[in-house]
Amino acid sequence: MQQQMAFTSSVRGAALHKPRAASYGVARARLAVRGQAQQPPRSVQTSSTATAEAVTNGIVTSPLFRLSYDTDNEHPDLTRSWKKTMKIAVTGAAGQISNHLLFMLASGEVFGRDQPIALQLLGSDRSREALEGVAMELEDSLYPLLREVKLGIDPLKVFEDADWALLIGAKPRGPGMERSALLDINGQIFQEQARALNEVASRDCKMLVVGNPCNTNALIGIHNAPDLPARNWHALTRLDENRAKCQLAIKAGKFYTSVTNVAIWGNHSTTQVPDFLNAKIGGVRVPNVIRDQQWLKEEFTPKVANRGGALIKKWGRSSAASTAVSIADHLRSLYTPTPTGDCFSTAVYTAGNPYGLDEDLVFSMPCRSTGDGNYEVINDFVIDDWLRAKLEESEQELRKERDCVGHLIPGASKAVCAITEDTMLPGEN
Amino acid sequence: MQQQMAFTSSVRGAALHKPRAASYGVARARLAVRGQAQQPPRSVQTSSTATAEAVTNGIVTSPLFRLSYDTDNEHPDLTRSWKKTMKIAVTGAAGQISNHLLFMLASGEVFGRDQPIALQLLGSDRSREALEGVAMELEDSLYPLLREVKLGIDPLKVFEDADWALLIGAKPRGPGMERSALLDINGQIFQEQARALNEVASRDCKMLVVGNPCNTNALIGIHNAPDLPARNWHALTRLDENRAKCQLAIKAGKFYTSVTNVAIWGNHSTTQVPDFLNAKIGGVRVPNVIRDQQWLKEEFTPKVANRGGALIKKWGRSSAASTAVSIADHLRSLYTPTPTGDCFSTAVYTAGNPYGLDEDLVFSMPCRSTGDGNYEVINDFVIDDWLRAKLEESEQELRKERDCVGHLIPGASKAVCAITEDTMLPGEN
Repeated sequence: MQQQMAFTSSVRGAALHKPRAASYGVARARLAVRGQAQQPPRSVQTSSTATAEAVTNGIVTSPLFRLSYDTDNEHPDLTRSWKKTMKIAVTGAAGQISNHLLFMLASGEVFGRDQPIALQLLGSDRSREALEGVAMELEDSLYPLLREVKLGIDPLKVFEDADWALLIGAKPRGPGMERSALLDINGQIFQEQARALNEVASRDCKMLVVGNPCNTNALIGIHNAPDLPARNWHALTRLDENRAKCQLAIKAGKFYTSVTNVAIWGNHSTTQVPDFLNAKIGGVRVPNVIRDQQWLKEEFTPKVANRGGALIKKWGRSSAASTAVSIADHLRSLYTPTPTGDCFSTAVYTAGNPYGLDEDLVFSMPCRSTGDGNYEVINDFVIDDWLRAKLEESEQELRKERDCVGHLIPGASKAVCAITEDTMLPGEN
Repeated sequence: MQQQMAFTSSVRGAALHKPRAASYGVARARLAVRGQAQQPPRSVQTSSTATAEAVTNGIVTSPLFRLSYDTDNEHPDLTRSWKKTMKIAVTGAAGQISNHLLFMLASGEVFGRDQPIALQLLGSDRSREALEGVAMELEDSLYPLLREVKLGIDPLKVFEDADWALLIGAKPRGPGMERSALLDINGQIFQEQARALNEVASRDCKMLVVGNPCNTNALIGIHNAPDLPARNWHALTRLDENRAKCQLAIKAGKFYTSVTNVAIWGNHSTTQVPDFLNAKIGGVRVPNVIRDQQWLKEEFTPKVANRGGALIKKWGRSSAASTAVSIADHLRSLYTPTPTGDCFSTAVYTAGNPYGLDEDLVFSMPCRSTGDGNYEVINDFVIDDWLRAKLEESEQELRKERDCVGHLIPGASKAVCAITEDTMLPGEN
């Protein structure tokens, strides 16, 4: 097999879906036409892979790019001890966060130097050429562990056999758009992507939702991918955890590394609850190190929640690099045994949760891992009355978000949207 | 010591230099006023570090930001085996390349997990706030090895005690600007930065010039930093080497890792010479693997040289990520023993070179390292008549560039600029 870009066309005759232009990250899962005859792969020059999606006589030809590498004639010492290639699908792959993350994944610093990976990148019509640019830069970076890069705009192709799906792409909120409208628009994207994952991904595929509103997007995903384990869905709250650790370190005048056991509870929104009660600095509970209760109760949470907004003011753009770092941290935490007495935060399905929370939400909780890619929710965090009230506030918000997207959840009652307040984090779309 | 931003003001009374606005990365080295009394450091809130440079009664107050971390109370097991902190100064620190590179440096993947680092970031008036944004994102990334971040706009402060200076910032070429004008403008920047390095950097400081035209900028640096070893100056040709390896792999249908011993000779410009004669694929010389002499002699070099241009067409922006990767590769090559029979490319001072080249140029050549941060030029590369002619062409171009910047080289004759052709690489400013 040649190292080249090959161009795979699949004929989809059942229905004509005119591409929705400029719909960044919008999945166009054409579930009805699966199982049609496929044309054999056809080799072309790199430059000609950039042809636009062709619509001829009612037939939509959806191109799929593919970079494949010949791994023959390699020095066997290099690859002998390597694990089986991990297939990682990424949406919003031409965006800023991915532009940092993909290089981190390919370098081996996330999954280890013995873990070859394949990247399966989902873009949109609009981002097609940019996606090719990303692939060219990945090529020029000569990462030995990066064994394949697939580019495409059809989730049914791109998600094929994926071991991980990093769902970063989401439609940004336009001017004046209500949170409920954003929930609906992005909910549709995640419904379609979840259906595609349910069809074609690895049966133990793990999903990390980054596109906002990420908790409820993940809940929609869970209900639209019934054949995949619900516990395999995550929504990212690791950036919040990292920011919380940073603020505690600054307040205490200590270095980051002494801050442990910091949980983020609830929704990735302004109702999130960075937990100082169970957190430790130098092994001592935070309230015994930082005696300023008013700061802990009144200032700490807004400092964490508003960090993105403060950054956008300075920086003029959103925090793509540190978001990518936090995604890498999230993944690394699942493949490294969690140190005793520590935790990491991830928003996961609440079914069977030990804290009495509504059992049909995606809620951030303290977790630990044995390093095999799975996690368990830690069940002995102290919840005092203050913390309980805060948790309930975030739980209530997530219930309202769920009510808003009832039309996207099979079997749920019709959507009733009672969200009035805006709880989006500043600095995020 | 508190983890905080402190604000160091130094009074500079000898001369009034009104800041040149919007001069990205322009060094304002005020050598005449060194040795003045300095005000003691003054602690302020993070937000108030953003005050603009104040000019009052002929006194220029140049603020310097500083993030310092308290490393007391850390678990001693973490740091016991660590090396002495490496101080890395970076110019153009708020730019796209740095936005990738700084996170790679801080993560430990470049210098190793036992090498703590301090980042000393040089920005400009214009990029001051963006620089603070970068520092905030670095904070939020919780890198254990990142022990200090200094931000400033005065190279005499920012370069203090630097072990490495990564000189990325340069003025981009405006519309219609001749290469000779760019040589002059950026030459001035590098003259001033070299003088500052000569004054305040570590006596074994190593310099890597990325800002273009990088070879001649490095030559100006060498002549304006007489107290630093000339051999410590590098100009980046590693991205060219990586791209050359990629193109050879694609042409041969092999994976990158089988391509070794690829040298880039000469100038980082269209006259660069990617060397296929000495390169090997699977241990066999390239001309015995790729039999297509016409491709090797006519198409290979333009493919490498035009890669940045092809990418900008796809991607709409320049290749910041892969440039950062190549800088990381360059540094890693100096701190890892070069495998037997392999090389890496770097443009270095030609004094005493084994190939009969003009001895006062910065010319890319095949090098190897024992892993101590230094290098030696490999002296037994085969140079046939074809290769010799190509080398001389690039050598001739570098001589002309040197003639253009005579006014920036102490002791040189007056500048005579005879450059007519444009040899800037497409896709670069």
